[in-house]
Amino acid sequence: MRLSLQPTLDPSDYRYTHLVRTRFAETDAMGIIHHGSYPAYLEEARAAMLSDAGFPYGDVRAGADGVDFAVLELYVRHRRPLRFEDEVRIHVMIDGLTRTTFQVGYLLDVADEVRATAVTVHGAVDGAGRPARMPAFLSGLVGSGGHGS
Amino acid sequence: MRLSLQPTLDPSDYRYTHLVRTRFAETDAMGIIHHGSYPAYLEEARAAMLSDAGFPYGDVRAGADGVDFAVLELYVRHRRPLRFEDEVRIHVMIDGLTRTTFQVGYLLDVADEVRATAVTVHGAVDGAGRPARMPAFLSGLVGSGGHGS
Amino acid sequence: MRLSLQPTLDPSDYRYTHLVRTRFAETDAMGIIHHGSYPAYLEEARAAMLSDAGFPYGDVRAGADGVDFAVLELYVRHRRPLRFEDEVRIHVMIDGLTRTTFQVGYLLDVADEVRATAVTVHGAVDGAGRPARMPAFLSGLVGSGGHGS
Amino acid sequence: MRLSLQPTLDPSDYRYTHLVRTRFAETDAMGIIHHGSYPAYLEEARAAMLSDAGFPYGDVRAGADGVDFAVLELYVRHRRPLRFEDEVRIHVMIDGLTRTTFQVGYLLDVADEVRATAVTVHGAVDGAGRPARMPAFLSGLVGSGGHGS
Repeated sequence: MRLSLQPTLDPSDYRYTHLVRTRFAETDAMGIIHHGSYPAYLEEARAAMLSDAGFPYGDVRAGADGVDFAVLELYVRHRRPLRFEDEVRIHVMIDGLTRTTFQVGYLLDVADEVRATAVTVHGAVDGAGRPARMPAFLSGLVGSGGHGS
Repeated sequence: MRLSLQPTLDPSDYRYTHLVRTRFAETDAMGIIHHGSYPAYLEEARAAMLSDAGFPYGDVRAGADGVDFAVLELYVRHRRPLRFEDEVRIHVMIDGLTRTTFQVGYLLDVADEVRATAVTVHGAVDGAGRPARMPAFLSGLVGSGGHGS
Repeated sequence: MRLSLQPTLDPSDYRYTHLVRTRFAETDAMGIIHHGSYPAYLEEARAAMLSDAGFPYGDVRAGADGVDFAVLELYVRHRRPLRFEDEVRIHVMIDGLTRTTFQVGYLLDVADEVRATAVTVHGAVDGAGRPARMPAFLSGLVGSGGHGS
Repeated sequence: MRLSLQPTLDPSDYRYTHLVRTRFAETDAMGIIHHGSYPAYLEEARAAMLSDAGFPYGDVRAGADGVDFAVLELYVRHRRPLRFEDEVRIHVMIDGLTRTTFQVGYLLDVADEVRATAVTVHGAVDGAGRPARMPAFLSGLVGSGGHGS
């Protein structure tokens, strides 16, 4: 288990904020957003962060040294449920970069009320799923980027 | 619009029956199975029919003349909702085979009560998404297969 | 089968346009957006249209005469696949309003290239799933709203 | 963070084994089962375990003291990817029962090759999402049930 990042509850500790509006399709019979919908939210937020930093994930995959960032581990802590039509801010940051893996931390809130925190651990893999060299640009994305300071 | 197949309400008109148990993840805040879950049910049922006939879809895709059966059209008519833990029988049959397309009809019932009917229209495509030759085995799968008669 | 609306390929025939960015989670092993992802796109677009018209779906459901718009029928025609990171414009319009049902037409394009058209048929139901009176506001939303003319 | 259970790699440490066949709809453009599909697999497996023990989840929810088992935390470790048409055995066990929460451990394998391990933490909640009394039957389900010993 590589997962070590502890996501904070302070949005200023994060590099990037992405907005997601929950879909009715993502609710369940408990009347809340099903927990199985969160991995797609987290993925959308980290793709938006990469895109904002100038590295759209489609380009990362299609490039000469094209890599995928396979998900090795996923952890989500649900603090309060999300509901249909919630405007969810997903704060994202990268940390724990090693030669083969990196970790992404997430804070989800709605109108400044914390709903969930999460961590994903990723490894670079090539098109056949074999470990690949971590793209150099990732080292420039580690940490909160100093925003909010 | 190629879709012309009229799915009947008589299970004996179908070639194959596949059983799906609904998941809680597939419910929505109306307390029923969300309509967006049905395409995956239909796909699972037609893959099971192909597999039962000796042509697992993974093999069809991976073969020397590997093709995918792209979904060109989808139609679902919801007659009564499905609910969590329903044991759904999905009756499947192929019809309307042409040189480039075929149609699949579906009848969904729970304890002999009709819940939905559906039709999908498919075209054979190669790995790049271009139209490809329809595999010869499909002509042997057209119709109800005579079961129930 | 009530479905009768014929969605046109002209965006100016539609009332409202909603933007969806495809998610990696919505792709499949053919490298395209899986057809099972479209119902959620359509639903998000029609909820956005209602919200834009002053009738957020959450309010419609929670109101004194709270109703759900159950999906009775769904038809999608795939003309060209969607891919990861596509910015999809979903054009939406309501037509075919009766005392118990209405139809919604959709045109999906990416950079002005048509990808799909779709129709859904809806009935008003109460919290127990029984047919309910169609909310009066719907009659004001029928047609293209005259935009583009 | 309540999550403390360490899922082992030995199937005999688990109480119940549930079989899931992966769907094409659950694949992604990397050609593997998308990590966002796993929460639904885990949920299906724990519902099957409850059902097998005589407590179908639908009954648990609908009973006089009806409760839901809200997901408080989720952890998944992906060791090797799942692919389309894999027959996945999901081994399940309950541990860490307290007055308000319990933990479920999972081991996923295909043909005896480990693919993933996972843990979920659950709290009993009533229909309004408020903490509720843990059903008494859960204490009888803790541990491996002695099978395999």
